[in-house]
Amino acid sequence: MSPAADLGRVLCIITGASRGFGRAVAQDLYRLVQPGSVLVLAARSGVDLRAFQAELTESEAGRAGLKVEVVVADIGKVEGLENIMRTSREAFCEDMDHIMLINNAASLGDVSKYVKAFTDLAEVDSYLSLNVSSAMCLTAKVLQAFPQRPGLRRSIINVTSLCALQPFRSWGLYCTAKAAREMMFKVLAEEEPDLRVLSYSPGPLDTEMQVEARTKTADPSIKKTFSNMFAQGQLLTCEMSSAKLMKVLLDDKFPSGDHIDVFDV
Amino acid sequence: MSPAADLGRVLCIITGASRGFGRAVAQDLYRLVQPGSVLVLAARSGVDLRAFQAELTESEAGRAGLKVEVVVADIGKVEGLENIMRTSREAFCEDMDHIMLINNAASLGDVSKYVKAFTDLAEVDSYLSLNVSSAMCLTAKVLQAFPQRPGLRRSIINVTSLCALQPFRSWGLYCTAKAAREMMFKVLAEEEPDLRVLSYSPGPLDTEMQVEARTKTADPSIKKTFSNMFAQGQLLTCEMSSAKLMKVLLDDKFPSGDHIDVFDV
Repeated sequence: MSPAADLGRVLCIITGASRGFGRAVAQDLYRLVQPGSVLVLAARSGVDLRAFQAELTESEAGRAGLKVEVVVADIGKVEGLENIMRTSREAFCEDMDHIMLINNAASLGDVSKYVKAFTDLAEVDSYLSLNVSSAMCLTAKVLQAFPQRPGLRRSIINVTSLCALQPFRSWGLYCTAKAAREMMFKVLAEEEPDLRVLSYSPGPLDTEMQVEARTKTADPSIKKTFSNMFAQGQLLTCEMSSAKLMKVLLDDKFPSGDHIDVFDV
Repeated sequence: MSPAADLGRVLCIITGASRGFGRAVAQDLYRLVQPGSVLVLAARSGVDLRAFQAELTESEAGRAGLKVEVVVADIGKVEGLENIMRTSREAFCEDMDHIMLINNAASLGDVSKYVKAFTDLAEVDSYLSLNVSSAMCLTAKVLQAFPQRPGLRRSIINVTSLCALQPFRSWGLYCTAKAAREMMFKVLAEEEPDLRVLSYSPGPLDTEMQVEARTKTADPSIKKTFSNMFAQGQLLTCEMSSAKLMKVLLDDKFPSGDHIDVFDV
């Protein structure tokens, strides 16, 4: 079967959409959906979001019939999740044939210290809430709001990392949360055979998170690895990595629940 | 090298020690440590803990010089962790040569529902706090209270599960937390080469958690698997599984951070 030319008439919800990888994914999706689709972009920064919304809707004059809704929301808060859901329900039309949720929002956590320094329960709780619980609850809310029905495709994308599979010194929180998320989405894939669940690892991206990685990482050798990757131009652009994700989504051949790395596409 | 005859003069902290696997481990360790050792047993139920303490200290009259301290504590609470640490610091003697922490306490989570039903952020947060954050913070506190020094062996045991490696339908929370913990302890093993870190999977045990598993699991086929295992006598006793863990600890050959399953011992 040849890849689809587009992703259908989609309601697509993207968290962390105002910058970095989430923003690149939104830009690509904007070009790959049919008229009648809506992108729901969520992020904490309203200024960035609205500027991005204007850029998307103005720059592509030819793309009539596409809508971009923005939600200024902290996904670590109940109200944040509810705001995303309210906007999504309002944006949904009965003739949409594809619901897509891109669980992209994440934080690196404090990489300036090792696991042995994490004695503060509230700090770890708060990190896991933002990076694990919120993704589980938003996914559950989306699946409940838009239940399975004939002709409706539902895709759940988890933006993951090599850190879900391999331990990295001084990246304790990040590795822990990424491993947790990946297992959670594997369970989901087993439970709901109608879903298309994908954990996509976008690779080392030239983003603000990488600046944090190469400036704050406690472990000298891991820190050096990141600095070298930057210095030697080995970081990927968000656009390049997002393009690979689009290829995977259009091909639509991955086993549901799979981990796919950018370097394997 | 032949296995050691005992585990040394140990300060050993065990969470969830009043019943099930934690209790069996405490019983075994009581026989495998040298005089001057102290077991610090933590659990939520004071009645069970004190009865167990009395049983341990009275039944083995020959084991002079061993102490059992009990801490009634909810490890999901800051005060619970602090109580364990206070008792542990008071119990420590300079001539101890081994610090051992057994992160055993865990809950199954609500297995009567699927991932798509977990829309309540507070419920997921609370589960992850008890089952992930608390293990990270207790481990960090123990490592800080008893830092590396020549002649001091430090062992951190994570009681894990096949669920850390494989998704099980309707066991979303449990799988997620076990995967998270296992990665967290892998990072720790990479960070602190002096530690002996082990994720031990005790197998399907004939415990109260298995009663929950076979009566409450939402997925019919998973539920049936557990019922069949029980009906056909395939569940392991805690004593048998604990004995395998003791063998692994005495042999002391595992790569730090490894996952070892009872069926591989």
